[in-house]
Amino acid sequence: MNMFSQRRNVEQVELGAELAPRFDADGLIPAIVVDGVTNAILMLGYMNAQALEQTIVTRQAHFWSRSRKALWRKGEHSGFAQTVERMLIDDDQDAVILHVRVDGPGSCHVGFRSCFYREVDLDQQSRDTPIRLNRSEPAPAFDAGTVYAGLPNPTQV
Amino acid sequence: MNMFSQRRNVEQVELGAELAPRFDADGLIPAIVVDGVTNAILMLGYMNAQALEQTIVTRQAHFWSRSRKALWRKGEHSGFAQTVERMLIDDDQDAVILHVRVDGPGSCHVGFRSCFYREVDLDQQSRDTPIRLNRSEPAPAFDAGTVYAGLPNPTQV
Repeated sequence: MNMFSQRRNVEQVELGAELAPRFDADGLIPAIVVDGVTNAILMLGYMNAQALEQTIVTRQAHFWSRSRKALWRKGEHSGFAQTVERMLIDDDQDAVILHVRVDGPGSCHVGFRSCFYREVDLDQQSRDTPIRLNRSEPAPAFDAGTVYAGLPNPTQV
Repeated sequence: MNMFSQRRNVEQVELGAELAPRFDADGLIPAIVVDGVTNAILMLGYMNAQALEQTIVTRQAHFWSRSRKALWRKGEHSGFAQTVERMLIDDDQDAVILHVRVDGPGSCHVGFRSCFYREVDLDQQSRDTPIRLNRSEPAPAFDAGTVYAGLPNPTQV
């Protein structure tokens, strides 16, 4: 596998034309997933080197499931795959953006279109008041109980 | 400090109206920063509890600098502050989005408007070919050498 270049110096990483990603101590790089049509941010996933490679080669979004500790093609359970239309990388090459076409009603394991379906109420600005969340997506886009039947919930308390 | 609620169970975290963020093993939560005018993703930063609290209370974006190991108000060196207009949180409350107004020409320490100024060339789909990057922002928006004079470069090789 020679898709990724070695990281040699700051100038190469920041201004070069080589893909030289930096994976964190757990071997992961965060991937921000954006709906290519609406520009809405759908989710933040994590990729190991294999997931990043598979995503580029197949143009289907792959991630590393931190809860299941397994490579995971988005949509393999739900059918709601993400086809990658564009991929961007940041200055120090430790984060990527995927612009995707979602083949289904949503990308969130709770059933919403986007994982970011709640907004923080910024009008409560006291350090001693519990901050509230408001629903920014009024209702789920699909029935997660049916779509993900039999699978463990990835949310960790 | 009572702004954050305790995480009690999956239903509360996913469907509740309490802000109950999950910080990772390093005490951090990733924050995706979006330009409130253009909808472009500007950067991915990391917040500790204090940075998240300060961001909500002051509506000025604060982060934890992983390279300097210090709380950091965006713009404290450059003057290019980020005023937070909206904040969203995801299903398991371990990632946030900030919609900001940038008081300056850019948000990237290399001098570009966005940290994501390069696009991965997805047409090279061989596992044995080094992947190339193309510049999606043609030129820097400001002179980083002047704006960040005397500061260490946060990029780690």
